[in-house]
Amino acid sequence: MSDIITAGILVIGDEILSGRTKDKNIGFIAEYLTNIGIDLKEVRVVSDDEADIVAALDALRGRYTYVFTTGGIGPTHDDITADSVAKAFGVSIDHHPEVVARFKERFKNPGELNEARLRMARIPDGAELIQSATILAPGFKIGNVIVMAGVPSIMQAMMDIVAPKLKSGVKMLSESVRANSREGDIGGPLRAIAEAHPDTIIGSYPFLDENSKPNTNLVVRSRDQAKLTAAMDAVKTMLAGLKAAS
Amino acid sequence: MSDIITAGILVIGDEILSGRTKDKNIGFIAEYLTNIGIDLKEVRVVSDDEADIVAALDALRGRYTYVFTTGGIGPTHDDITADSVAKAFGVSIDHHPEVVARFKERFKNPGELNEARLRMARIPDGAELIQSATILAPGFKIGNVIVMAGVPSIMQAMMDIVAPKLKSGVKMLSESVRANSREGDIGGPLRAIAEAHPDTIIGSYPFLDENSKPNTNLVVRSRDQAKLTAAMDAVKTMLAGLKAAS
Repeated sequence: MSDIITAGILVIGDEILSGRTKDKNIGFIAEYLTNIGIDLKEVRVVSDDEADIVAALDALRGRYTYVFTTGGIGPTHDDITADSVAKAFGVSIDHHPEVVARFKERFKNPGELNEARLRMARIPDGAELIQSATILAPGFKIGNVIVMAGVPSIMQAMMDIVAPKLKSGVKMLSESVRANSREGDIGGPLRAIAEAHPDTIIGSYPFLDENSKPNTNLVVRSRDQAKLTAAMDAVKTMLAGLKAAS
Repeated sequence: MSDIITAGILVIGDEILSGRTKDKNIGFIAEYLTNIGIDLKEVRVVSDDEADIVAALDALRGRYTYVFTTGGIGPTHDDITADSVAKAFGVSIDHHPEVVARFKERFKNPGELNEARLRMARIPDGAELIQSATILAPGFKIGNVIVMAGVPSIMQAMMDIVAPKLKSGVKMLSESVRANSREGDIGGPLRAIAEAHPDTIIGSYPFLDENSKPNTNLVVRSRDQAKLTAAMDAVKTMLAGLKAAS
């Protein structure tokens, strides 16, 4: 189907892999993309290593409509995302005149606009800037790759800027129901319902409820409201049948 | 160096990619591995799709000493991790007699030990169980792949069981210092220090401090305490020099 728009996320940073920083961006972007009708298909986290970044970038950008990266666009030696993206696309990278002009406005004290800060103005040739008055180091979009900051508040601002420019697909609809049953008691009938409703995705998520009893949330997703409703009706009928039998 | 033990994480689940569930396992495992001297090199998140799981598993298990998976070992139709792992390793999968025996003890009411619950006893041929009295669906280890639950509390219990059996490397040591400087002011000298101390990894992490001022944490990591100390001394001397000059 041509109206399915897909995406991958590439999180870049040693601090995530060492566990020192707990990623908050994957969940945010995942939910954001779902809300605008883009299917997130895969996430990768790699270290601050050019070869690793380029390999992951090439794998993801060839496979999905969009790739969103977070991290590695600051002023220090371990910020190598922009250079890695330029390498993956085979384009040159240099100080972007518009960013340099903004930095000159902002850093007026002697020595402030140093080489480290100018590093944040390095943008691959042909990229479109993602910036606003409140964003210091800009993100950018080149081809189908959207490069964003790692700091969650800045990344979120960048998503808001770039999202309206993206193709979005038919939105995935979703409804959920609390089963008041243990997952193991509904697995069999649920599989039958899933098989009978092929254009829906039925997920089963166990949790401990407020009485510390094993319980289950069931989520039905589909791009077609009628099919979603039919599958959810089947789920509810199944649950009512279990209750009557117990 | 033969004493570097590496790892990858494979998170399996549509609920993570849709943003409905926010992953808490990557950060936990990352920190855990760092603490026992295993280098986490890469993380991937894929959907509940056999081909995707097998492809990611094969990529990671060929590249790293260990692969840790989370998710997809419950009783419902979307729990396909065990079957996917068996397929990746080219081994058969069947109900494990030890797990079935435990389930028979536990589920004594008529109909309770149904096909869905028995699904949780399906273990690839040759795998070693990861279980305890408090874990219902066991995890398992086959080759260099460790298969764990997606529910954080259960996954954490499984990590505690499996960790003592793993090879661990020379632990990565780490020290951090608060720079009381903006990242852009220290990027230049920090790069020089990083280049002069090749057996260390120097990370720079900007944050807003308690006065909402841009500040930076600097983290030096190395497996060699003397080299770590030398690099950290250089960082502190650099920071003191900046302070004296300001």
